[in-house]
Amino acid sequence: MSSSEIARAEPRVVGVLGAGQLGRMLVEAAARLNVSVRLLDVGDSAPAKQICDVPAQAGSSARSEHIDGSFADGEKIKALANKVDIITVEIEHVDASKLQEVLDQGLVKEVHPTPATIKLIQDKFAQKDYLRNKGLPCGEFSPLPEPAQNASDTVQSQARAIEEAGDKYGYPVMIKSRTQAYDGRGNYVVKTASDASDAVNALGAGTRGLYAEKWAPFEREVAVMVVRSSTGEVRSYPAVETVHKNNICHSVFVPLRSRDARIGSRARKIAEKAVSTFSGAGVFGVELFLMGDGELRINEIAPRPHNSGHYTIEASETSQYENHLRAILGLPLGSTELKVGSAIMINLLGLADLDKDKDAIAKTYAPAVVSLNIPGTTVHLYGKSGCRKGRKMGHITIVGPSDAAVRDRLAPIQDALNTATEAGETGKSLPWGLTLEGASQAAAKAFKEGTSVATSAPAKSSQDFKHPHPLVGIIMGSDSDLPVMLPGAEILKKFDIPFELSIVSAHRTPDRMRDYARAAPSRGLRCIIAGAGGAAHLPGMVAAQTPLPVIGVPVKGSTLDGVDSLHSIVQMPRGIPVASVAINNSTNAALLAIRILGAADPHYLEAMQSYMYAMEQEVLGKVQRLEEQGWDSAVKK
Amino acid sequence: MSSSEIARAEPRVVGVLGAGQLGRMLVEAAARLNVSVRLLDVGDSAPAKQICDVPAQAGSSARSEHIDGSFADGEKIKALANKVDIITVEIEHVDASKLQEVLDQGLVKEVHPTPATIKLIQDKFAQKDYLRNKGLPCGEFSPLPEPAQNASDTVQSQARAIEEAGDKYGYPVMIKSRTQAYDGRGNYVVKTASDASDAVNALGAGTRGLYAEKWAPFEREVAVMVVRSSTGEVRSYPAVETVHKNNICHSVFVPLRSRDARIGSRARKIAEKAVSTFSGAGVFGVELFLMGDGELRINEIAPRPHNSGHYTIEASETSQYENHLRAILGLPLGSTELKVGSAIMINLLGLADLDKDKDAIAKTYAPAVVSLNIPGTTVHLYGKSGCRKGRKMGHITIVGPSDAAVRDRLAPIQDALNTATEAGETGKSLPWGLTLEGASQAAAKAFKEGTSVATSAPAKSSQDFKHPHPLVGIIMGSDSDLPVMLPGAEILKKFDIPFELSIVSAHRTPDRMRDYARAAPSRGLRCIIAGAGGAAHLPGMVAAQTPLPVIGVPVKGSTLDGVDSLHSIVQMPRGIPVASVAINNSTNAALLAIRILGAADPHYLEAMQSYMYAMEQEVLGKVQRLEEQGWDSAVKK
Repeated sequence: MSSSEIARAEPRVVGVLGAGQLGRMLVEAAARLNVSVRLLDVGDSAPAKQICDVPAQAGSSARSEHIDGSFADGEKIKALANKVDIITVEIEHVDASKLQEVLDQGLVKEVHPTPATIKLIQDKFAQKDYLRNKGLPCGEFSPLPEPAQNASDTVQSQARAIEEAGDKYGYPVMIKSRTQAYDGRGNYVVKTASDASDAVNALGAGTRGLYAEKWAPFEREVAVMVVRSSTGEVRSYPAVETVHKNNICHSVFVPLRSRDARIGSRARKIAEKAVSTFSGAGVFGVELFLMGDGELRINEIAPRPHNSGHYTIEASETSQYENHLRAILGLPLGSTELKVGSAIMINLLGLADLDKDKDAIAKTYAPAVVSLNIPGTTVHLYGKSGCRKGRKMGHITIVGPSDAAVRDRLAPIQDALNTATEAGETGKSLPWGLTLEGASQAAAKAFKEGTSVATSAPAKSSQDFKHPHPLVGIIMGSDSDLPVMLPGAEILKKFDIPFELSIVSAHRTPDRMRDYARAAPSRGLRCIIAGAGGAAHLPGMVAAQTPLPVIGVPVKGSTLDGVDSLHSIVQMPRGIPVASVAINNSTNAALLAIRILGAADPHYLEAMQSYMYAMEQEVLGKVQRLEEQGWDSAVKK
Repeated sequence: MSSSEIARAEPRVVGVLGAGQLGRMLVEAAARLNVSVRLLDVGDSAPAKQICDVPAQAGSSARSEHIDGSFADGEKIKALANKVDIITVEIEHVDASKLQEVLDQGLVKEVHPTPATIKLIQDKFAQKDYLRNKGLPCGEFSPLPEPAQNASDTVQSQARAIEEAGDKYGYPVMIKSRTQAYDGRGNYVVKTASDASDAVNALGAGTRGLYAEKWAPFEREVAVMVVRSSTGEVRSYPAVETVHKNNICHSVFVPLRSRDARIGSRARKIAEKAVSTFSGAGVFGVELFLMGDGELRINEIAPRPHNSGHYTIEASETSQYENHLRAILGLPLGSTELKVGSAIMINLLGLADLDKDKDAIAKTYAPAVVSLNIPGTTVHLYGKSGCRKGRKMGHITIVGPSDAAVRDRLAPIQDALNTATEAGETGKSLPWGLTLEGASQAAAKAFKEGTSVATSAPAKSSQDFKHPHPLVGIIMGSDSDLPVMLPGAEILKKFDIPFELSIVSAHRTPDRMRDYARAAPSRGLRCIIAGAGGAAHLPGMVAAQTPLPVIGVPVKGSTLDGVDSLHSIVQMPRGIPVASVAINNSTNAALLAIRILGAADPHYLEAMQSYMYAMEQEVLGKVQRLEEQGWDSAVKK
C-alpha cells in the first residue's frame, strides 16, 4: 500500500509522456498525493525523472521503472502502457494514433486528454476550424493546399494561395505550420505578395501543411487555464496577461488588469466553453488575443499544464499540476481561486549556449540569485543538463498583497535580467562576478531603498500622484479643491501607499466619473477618496457605481461653513454607503484609507500603530515642555 | 553543471541525516533550487529517497548515491560525509560526536547546526539549563542523580530526589528523560510522593538520566520557527498556536490569536533570542507554554524543521524547508511573512495498525479525501510503507483569507477525522465505504450548505451575534441603541460575514472600551462599527485606541435630531479618522464594512456588486409597475 492513491482500494499508476519541466512539476504534485508515476522520455536524468525514484522490479535490467525513449515512439508508448493504468501528456507532440491503439487494446484504462483531443490540437488548422465551428471567436484564417507528392509543385500552389490570402485579408498575413509548431517556430510573417515563396520555403519547402491567418494586431495577450474533469465539469483559473518576447513566453501577470472588468470574465467564459467541447480530462491552456476594441480571439490551446499557469503553484488554492492529476484520476477538482493579491511569473530562458560561453548557466540564473533577496519570490530551476539560448531553464514566481507590491519586487529582478541578457549577448562577464554575491547584495540594497540595480532597468515608480498600480485614488471635483486634498496625498506618500490623484467632476464630467468608478476594482484600486464642496455629489455618485469603499471629504465653501457638503456627503440613502470624515480633513481620509488597506496587508496596520504611537509621544513631549516652561511662556510662543 | 547550485562556480552537495517526512519536504525545496542532496536512512524507499533520484556512479554496487543505514551509526555518517560538502539533520537523535569527528577530519566543510548545538539539544536538561543561564524563561526544574553502576541504587536515589522535587515544587511534578524523548515518550507525571519509584522504573529503571520539572499548568501551547544564518542573522516566523493530543502535535493555527497583541511578538523575541545563542545555521522549532498570567516559558527546542512549521509551505512567503536550505548554504534568508490571512495544519496520524486492520490506511487518509472538496486545502502524504497507530502519515494544510474562513473549511475535515478515529478505535468500517467517495460527496455538500457531515463533530458556528472568529464587531453604547443597530447586523448576516455584537460604553465602561479597541486586531477583527447617540464619543474613542477602520453610526436622540451625534462622530481631529455614515443608518455602516473586507477578499466585492445590481433591478421593477399602473393608483397604494 506504500504507493496507495488516496482513498482507493486499488491504487492506480499514472504514466506521463514527456519528463521535462512540466512533467517535473506534475510529479511534485503527484508525490504530495502519494500517486505513483512512470515517465517516458529520453535518458535517466530528464527533469521529472530526477525527482521520481521508482526502482526497477527485481530481475529487470533497467535501473528504474521509467521508460527511456521518445514520447513520439509508438513502441515506447506501448512499453509505458504496459506498466500503468492511466496515461497523460506533458507535451502534445506525441504519437496520438499509438495512444488510441494502446487504449483500444486495453493496455491502459484511460488516456487523458483523449487521443482524439490530442490529435485535433496537434493540427493547429484543424483545432481552429473545430473551434470556429463550435461558435468560438478565432479571427479569420484559411488552409493552404496540402503538400503534393512533388514539393516544388506544392511551393508554387501554397505561395499562390498565400497571395490570395493576402488579397483577401490584406498584408501582413501570418503563415503557420499546421503541426509541430511551438514557441513561434513554424510561424512566418508575409509582408508583401513577393514574400510568399520565401515563407513556403522557410516553412518546410512544400513538405508541410500550412495555413494562413489574417493579421491580428492585438493589444495584449491573455491566457486562461481551464481544468476539465472526466465527467465534463470545467473550472477556469483567473485570466492572466502574458508577455511574449521573440514568440516565447517571457512573463505572466495575474490578475488581469483592465479598464473593462468584463474582459477577464469574458476570457474565462470563452476558455471554459472551448475546453468543455473537448473529450478527456486534464488542464488546458487557452491563449487569447485581446484586440484594441475589446474583442477576444482564441490564438491556440494546449492540452496540458502550461507556462502561463506556473504561477498557480505559489499563488492559487490548487495548482494547475495538482488539478491536472485530480482531473485524470477522477478526484474532485480543486479550487482555482487566487490565495494572494497579485502574482508575476518570469521565465528563466537560457541567455547563451553553454558550449560557446562557459558562464551561460550563471548568466541565466542571475535573476534567480537576485530574487533570493526579494520577499515573496520562489525560484524554480528545472535541473536541465545543458543550457541553450532561449531554452526554458527555470522560472521565478513573485507573489504579494497587491500589483504595486509585486511590481516593486519585480524591479530588481528585471534589472538583473536585463544586465544578464546583455552579458549573454555580448559574451562579456557579469558585472557582479560569477558567484553573483555582488548582484545579490546590490539587489537587497536596491529593494530596501527602492532604487534600481542597473541603470538599464525601468525606473521604479516615482511615488508622485500617478503610481502605475495605485491602491488608492484621490479624486476631487475641481482643482480649487486641491489645497484641501493635498494633505491627504502627503499622508499617503508618507506611508508609501501607491496612489493616484486626479480631477473627476460629478456635474461637469459625469461620463468620466462613471468610467472611473466602474473601472476602479479591475484596475486594482482598493479604496477611493473623493473630495467635494457645496452640493458635493461626487463621493455618493462614485459610491453608487463601484463596490469599493468610498471616503468622502466635505470641502468647506464660501458659505455655510462646509456643513452643506458634510450633510450632502454623509446623508446617503440606505444601500449605498459613503465613509465621511470631518470637513476639510483629507488627512483623516488618507489615514482611514490606510486602515482599510490594513484588511489585506497587516503591514499597514503596524504602520498605523507606529503613527499613532508617534502622535502620542509628540503630545507627551508638549506636555513635558509645558511643565518645564510653565503655562505663561508656552502661551506667548 | 546539471546539479549546479544557484550562482556558484563550485556546486556543493548537501547530506541529510534522516529521510523521513521532514527530509522529504526538505528535498522538495532542494529540487526547486537544483541543490543536490544525499540522504542517510534505512532502506531505499524512505520517504525522502522516493523523491530524490541520484543514480550511483558507474561501477558502484549500490543502486543510488544515498546511504542505506542508521543516522545514529557513526560509520554510515562517515560514508555520507565522504560524498557531500555540507551535512544537516532532519532529526536530532543522531551521533553528534561522529558529526564532530567528520568535521574535524575535514571530510565535510560544514555541519549545520553545529554538532555542539545538536549535542546540547539532545540532552533536554542540559538544553534547559543552558537556556536558563542565557536568561531565557524556562520555568523551574532540577536534575535527578545520574545513573550509578548499580541500577537499583539509582532507582532509590532518583526516587528520593523526585520526592524532594515534589516537596519543593508541589505535586504533580513532571519527570522527563534527558535524552531520546519525543512526542511525549520519556515523560512521566508524578502525582504523589508514592509514585516516585514507579516513575523511575517506567523511565529506564535507573539506567537513564532524568530531571524534574515544576508542573506547568499552561493555558495554551505556542511555537515559533526561527531561521538562523551561518553569520548569526535570525528571522522568526509568526507565532502559532499548537494543539497536542496524547502529547503528539495534532493541529497548528496561525496567526496566534489573543486578547493581548504583545504575546505573539514576545514569543518571537524569546525564540529569536534563544536561537541566536546557538551555533550553526538552519531552522529551529521553539515550543513555548503560555501560562494563564500571560507569562511565556520555553518548553523545548528542535534543531531542525518542525511539525509546527509545515504550514509555511502553503502559507508563507518562504517555507521553513527552503529557509533551512538557504541558511545552511549561506544564501540570503527568505521572508518569513504570511502570504495568506490565516492557516491551519492538521496531522494525519495513523488511526490503526495495518497488521491488525487492513483498512488502517483508508481510515487514516479519510480526512485527506474529504479535504479534496474543500477550497484552500493541500494534502501531503508521506509515502510511508506501513501504518501504525499514532504514526505521522501525512498532513493537511488549510489556507484562507481569514480565521473564520479556515475554520469553516476545517469543520467537515474535522468531522471526517472524528468519524475515522472512531472507526480506527472500534475496528469498524468507515460509514462511507472504503473508496470514501461517499465521504467526499458528503463533505462537498456540507461545505456548501454550512452543515456538518457527522453529528459527532463540533457544530459550525451559528451565525448569530457571537461568531467565534469575527471579522466585524458591532458595538453600541447602550442597549437602547440596539433597534438602530440591528438592521446593520441583519445586513452582515445576509452577506454571511462573521461578526459579533455587544455593548461597549465609552462613558460607563471606559476600561472595557479600551480593552476592546486594543485587542481587536490581534483577535482577528478587520473593522469595527460603533453606534452612539448624543455626545457620541464611542466611535472616536475606539478609533483612538485601534489601528482598524472604525465606522461611526450617529444615533438620533430625543433632541437635536441626531445632528449632535453626527457632528460629534464626524468632526474628529486630524490623526484619528472615523468613517461616519448617515444618522441611524446602520445598514450603510454594515455595507461599508463589507466593502472594506473586500480589500482582503474580492468575493465580498463580487457580493457587493450583486447586491447593487439587485437594488437596481428592484427600483427598475418599481419603475415598471409605475408605468403599468399609472401614478394615481401607485400613490394610493
